[in-house]
Amino acid sequence: MAVITRAKSALNVVSSARYEKGPMTKRYDQACPVAKALEVIGDRWTLLIVRDLLRGARRFQDFQTSLTGIAPTILSDRLKLMEEHGLIARRFYSDHPPRAEYLLTDKGKELEMVVGALAVWGARHVHPDTALVHTECGEPVQIGYYCPRCGDRVRGTAVQLQLA
Amino acid sequence: MAVITRAKSALNVVSSARYEKGPMTKRYDQACPVAKALEVIGDRWTLLIVRDLLRGARRFQDFQTSLTGIAPTILSDRLKLMEEHGLIARRFYSDHPPRAEYLLTDKGKELEMVVGALAVWGARHVHPDTALVHTECGEPVQIGYYCPRCGDRVRGTAVQLQLA
Repeated sequence: MAVITRAKSALNVVSSARYEKGPMTKRYDQACPVAKALEVIGDRWTLLIVRDLLRGARRFQDFQTSLTGIAPTILSDRLKLMEEHGLIARRFYSDHPPRAEYLLTDKGKELEMVVGALAVWGARHVHPDTALVHTECGEPVQIGYYCPRCGDRVRGTAVQLQLA
Repeated sequence: MAVITRAKSALNVVSSARYEKGPMTKRYDQACPVAKALEVIGDRWTLLIVRDLLRGARRFQDFQTSLTGIAPTILSDRLKLMEEHGLIARRFYSDHPPRAEYLLTDKGKELEMVVGALAVWGARHVHPDTALVHTECGEPVQIGYYCPRCGDRVRGTAVQLQLA
């Protein structure tokens, strides 16, 4: 009996190992789109991998070069989870030897404005050596809501969370 | 001299101890506004506390009620770090007993579009029971860049990161 219990508990440890690895992979248990989004992309490194993909990075080596300090096992883990969550698709560009590259899905591409909002806020408040500017006029851009039906910008006070 | 050195190094340990506590408080060592922003707001729970503050939550108890599962010590730690980073200000609304409430600073309020971008993406892709809609017409809103000088929306392809 003691043996069975030990074996079971060893299995539990194995099956929950990945889930427990990073604190951000834990769930928040909230019926809120912000919390649900953070369960998928809140892990350390994930949004920086998305940033790199948006800039054109595709290969494991590209991410390793950009993300100084990331352990290969962590990078590999993040890419697998991102694929499981449908943010990226893996494609083999060589069969012998097998070599894969990663491409953002539409779901992944739509994270552009999450990354953009972080960049605008970060440049304004914590990394003022940089600015995200409108290429045509050089003015720092801002981020806002807009309504595709009305065709206008919408203030935050005119936006509400609705149950679908 | 040795005593002074030891004393100094003990102080250093104390001052950096909290900074090293959670994995997300580690630095990324990148000259990038996205990475710098994530160093400040990438910790588990932090953006949910910002979300609650944007909705009007102010008191420790408000956050505890909203954030099921957060340990009081973690919540306390997050609030202290947010205050150190200038995202919130603490104000005493009672002296006897001493009771504090927390208010977003302008720097903190400007995280509205980071939270908004997460909400829009989350509602669209991972929590479709909800939608962020334009109050006037009921249409789901989108998020985009705009240029305060040109007064127009700007495509992502017309935005570039510039060294200031």
